[in-house]
Amino acid sequence: MANVVVGMLGLGTVGSGVVKLLSNHPTIQLKKVAVRDLAKAREISPDCELTDNPEAVVNDPEIEVLIEVMGGEQPALKLITDAINSGKHVVTANKEVLAKNGPELFRKAREKEVAIFFEASVAGGVPLISTIQKGLEANQISSVFGILNGTTNFILSKMEKEALPFAQVLKEAQDLGFAEADPTSDVEGFDVAYKLSILTALAFGKFVKPDDIYREGITKIAAEDLEHAAEFGYRIKLLGMAARLKKDAISARVQPVLVPLSHSIASLSGASNGIVVRGDAVGELMMIGPGAGQLPTASAVVGDVVNLATALRLQDFASYFHTKVGGDWQTVQDPDEWQSAYYLRLAVDDHPGVIGRIGTIFGEHEISISSIIQRGVTAEAANVIIVTHPVKTGNLNRALATLSKENFLSSIASRLAIFEDSPEQ
Amino acid sequence: MANVVVGMLGLGTVGSGVVKLLSNHPTIQLKKVAVRDLAKAREISPDCELTDNPEAVVNDPEIEVLIEVMGGEQPALKLITDAINSGKHVVTANKEVLAKNGPELFRKAREKEVAIFFEASVAGGVPLISTIQKGLEANQISSVFGILNGTTNFILSKMEKEALPFAQVLKEAQDLGFAEADPTSDVEGFDVAYKLSILTALAFGKFVKPDDIYREGITKIAAEDLEHAAEFGYRIKLLGMAARLKKDAISARVQPVLVPLSHSIASLSGASNGIVVRGDAVGELMMIGPGAGQLPTASAVVGDVVNLATALRLQDFASYFHTKVGGDWQTVQDPDEWQSAYYLRLAVDDHPGVIGRIGTIFGEHEISISSIIQRGVTAEAANVIIVTHPVKTGNLNRALATLSKENFLSSIASRLAIFEDSPEQ
Repeated sequence: MANVVVGMLGLGTVGSGVVKLLSNHPTIQLKKVAVRDLAKAREISPDCELTDNPEAVVNDPEIEVLIEVMGGEQPALKLITDAINSGKHVVTANKEVLAKNGPELFRKAREKEVAIFFEASVAGGVPLISTIQKGLEANQISSVFGILNGTTNFILSKMEKEALPFAQVLKEAQDLGFAEADPTSDVEGFDVAYKLSILTALAFGKFVKPDDIYREGITKIAAEDLEHAAEFGYRIKLLGMAARLKKDAISARVQPVLVPLSHSIASLSGASNGIVVRGDAVGELMMIGPGAGQLPTASAVVGDVVNLATALRLQDFASYFHTKVGGDWQTVQDPDEWQSAYYLRLAVDDHPGVIGRIGTIFGEHEISISSIIQRGVTAEAANVIIVTHPVKTGNLNRALATLSKENFLSSIASRLAIFEDSPEQ
Repeated sequence: MANVVVGMLGLGTVGSGVVKLLSNHPTIQLKKVAVRDLAKAREISPDCELTDNPEAVVNDPEIEVLIEVMGGEQPALKLITDAINSGKHVVTANKEVLAKNGPELFRKAREKEVAIFFEASVAGGVPLISTIQKGLEANQISSVFGILNGTTNFILSKMEKEALPFAQVLKEAQDLGFAEADPTSDVEGFDVAYKLSILTALAFGKFVKPDDIYREGITKIAAEDLEHAAEFGYRIKLLGMAARLKKDAISARVQPVLVPLSHSIASLSGASNGIVVRGDAVGELMMIGPGAGQLPTASAVVGDVVNLATALRLQDFASYFHTKVGGDWQTVQDPDEWQSAYYLRLAVDDHPGVIGRIGTIFGEHEISISSIIQRGVTAEAANVIIVTHPVKTGNLNRALATLSKENFLSSIASRLAIFEDSPEQ
C-alpha cells in the first residue's frame, strides 16, 4: 500500500501515544506535528518535523489526513475547519469541538468529500462508533445510555464503598491524578454531555446541542443517599442517556440516577466506561472498556487513521475487509505445555496417610498445592478437594496417572482448570 | 443508491428474520430464496421467487450477494464455493463451514476479489467481527476468550443456582427449547470450538482447525463442583479461549474453567454471550449481548448485507462513513415530560401529620408513592425518604414547589431519578 502522509496537532499524553502506536504502521508517514512550546521537554520525540505553527501542518499540501489531539474548542475548531476546506480528512479525539459544532463540520466534510473519524472522542478505547455505525447497521436504535465518565464513576464507587462525603473523595481522586485540578467538566456532567451529543448523532442521526441536554452533576450526592439507594436495591450512577421518542424527537439527559443492582451497568465500578445500546433487532448490547488513558485513546485514534488510510488506498474494496483473515491454518500449542492452576476432586478411601501420599506424589511432579480439604467422609469413602498453584499441565497429567495406581484412590471425580487472568502464560 | 440484488439459501428461523429486516432496506432486492421443501408452511412468505433448487440461486447471474443461512457443512460448503467461483459476494452465518474450511474459502475469495462477511457466525447479535476488524485495528491482540454458547451457560447457571445435576437441568432446558434434542454440539463444546476457530482468524490472522482445538464439555460437571468452586471464590463457566504465545503459535481451548467471581465474565448468567478481547493498547474490552435468537442473528446477517451493499455502490468512500451522521441539530424533549420514578430525601420538622400532608400534596399532583420511611429523627428534625412510582417529572416539580411552602419542610435534601429499564417511555 502506498504511503499515506499524516500531520498531527498536539503532542500531549494522547499525541505521544499516537506516535508510539503509529510506529507499528510503516505505510502511514507522520510528517509534521504542531506543539504549543517547542522548548518543552517531552515524553517522546517523534522522528518528524516539529513546529509551533499549527497552520504549517494544516496548510501542508502533502498531508492527506490531519490528526487533532490538542483538545479544547479553539483554536482546534478553526484548524479542523481549515483542514476540511483544504480537502484533508480529519481524525479527532475532540468531543467538545464535535458536540458543539458537529452539524456544521459534517456538512462541510460532505461538501468537500472528506471524512471525519472520531472514535476516540467517546469512551476512549471502547470501539463504540464502529460498533454502532457498522455492527448495528440493521438495527433501529431505540436508546443508548451508560457510564461515560470514569472520574465520576470512580468517585461514586468510592463514596459508596467507604461511606465518605463527595468533597473528601474528590480531593483524594485529585491527589491520585484521577480528577483534574478543576473538576467542573467531570463532576458537573459537561464531559458526559459532549459525549452524549456525539452518541445521539451516531444512534439517531443528529447531534444534540450540548446546551439542550439536561445536565445534573454529582456534587450534591450524599453518602447517605448511596446508602438508602442500596437499601432499596439500587446503586447511584452518573449516566448519559438518550432515547428515541418519535420520528424526530429524542430525550437526552446527563444525571445521577438510581440503577437497579440487577442491571450490569450497576456493577461497573472504578474508572471503566460501560455503554448499553438497545436496538430493535439485537435487543440489548453492552460494551465495557477503558474510557480514557494514553494508549486506549491513542489506539482509537490510530485505528481511525489506519482504517482511513486503508480506505484511501483501496484497490478492490474486498481487500478492505480481508486484511486480517488469512488463508492458512494456525498452529496450536500442545496442551501438555499449558501453565494453569487446577481444581481437583478425588474420591478416596478414608484411611490415614492418604493426604500425605497425595502430597508426596504431587511434589515428585513439581505440583505445589494451594489448598487441600477433605469432605463427605463416610465409613468407606471421602472426597479430597485440591486447588493447585499454576502448574505445567503435562506434570499434572503424569501426577494423576501415578495417583491412579494407588489403591486408596477410587476415582478422579473432577479435574478442572482455573482461569488464568492472563491466559497468555 | 442503485439496487443490490441478493439471493438467499435457507428460510428457517434466521432466514425468516432476514426477510423481515431486509424489508427496512428498499435498496436491497431479495430476488430468490432456496428452501428444502416448497410445500412446507412458513412463518413468513417473502415477496420473491422461492425455489427448491439452490443452484438456481447460486447460478443466477443477476444476484451479486449470496446469503447462506441454511446451516450444516454440506451442501452449504459446495454452494458457497460455487457462488464465490461465479464472482458472488457471500454473507454467511455458518460457523461450521467457516471453521472447517476457512483458509480455502478466503483464499478463493481473494483470488476472485469477492468478500465473505460472517458477523452472524460468532456470538449471534454481538457485533464482534466489526469490532475486532475495525475498532481494534491499532491493537496487537494478545488473547480473546469468553462465553460463546448460551445453552451451556444457561445450564451451568441453573445447576449452580438450584444445586441440580446436569442431566436434570439439560432435560428442563430441552423442554424449554433452550437446548437441542441432540445437545452434543452444545454440551460437548463443538459449537464453541467452531466459533473459537473463527475468532482466532480474526484476532490472530489464521483459522485453527477445529480438530486442533482442545475441547472439553460440561457433561461431567457435578453440582457439588459448582458448590466447591463458589467456596473458593470461583464460578464454573464453559469458555472458549485463544491466546497468542509467540510469533506463529497460539493456544486454543474449549473447557469448563473456574473463573474468579471478581471477573465480569463470571457474573454473566443465562443465555447471553460475553466476549473479552485483550489488546496491547486498549487493555481489556468486553462485549455482552445475545448469542443467538432469530432477530439478533438476522440483524448481524442484514448488517453485513447492508455494509457490503453500501461498499459495492460506493461513490466516494467518505459517504460510506457518514451515512449515519447528520448535518442538523436534534430536537429534544422537555424534561417536564419525562416519565420516571424518583428517590427523594426530605429534611422535615418531626411533628405529627407530616407524612400525611406529604401524601396529600403528592396525591393532588398525581404522584403515587411506592415507599416512604422516616429516618434520623432528632428532637427537631427528621429525614423522610420517599420512592415514587413512575410519574411525570413536571408533576413532581410542581408537587415539590407546593411542598416547599409548607413550614414543616426544612429542605429537599435529595431528588434523584430512578433509572427506567426502558428509558424510551
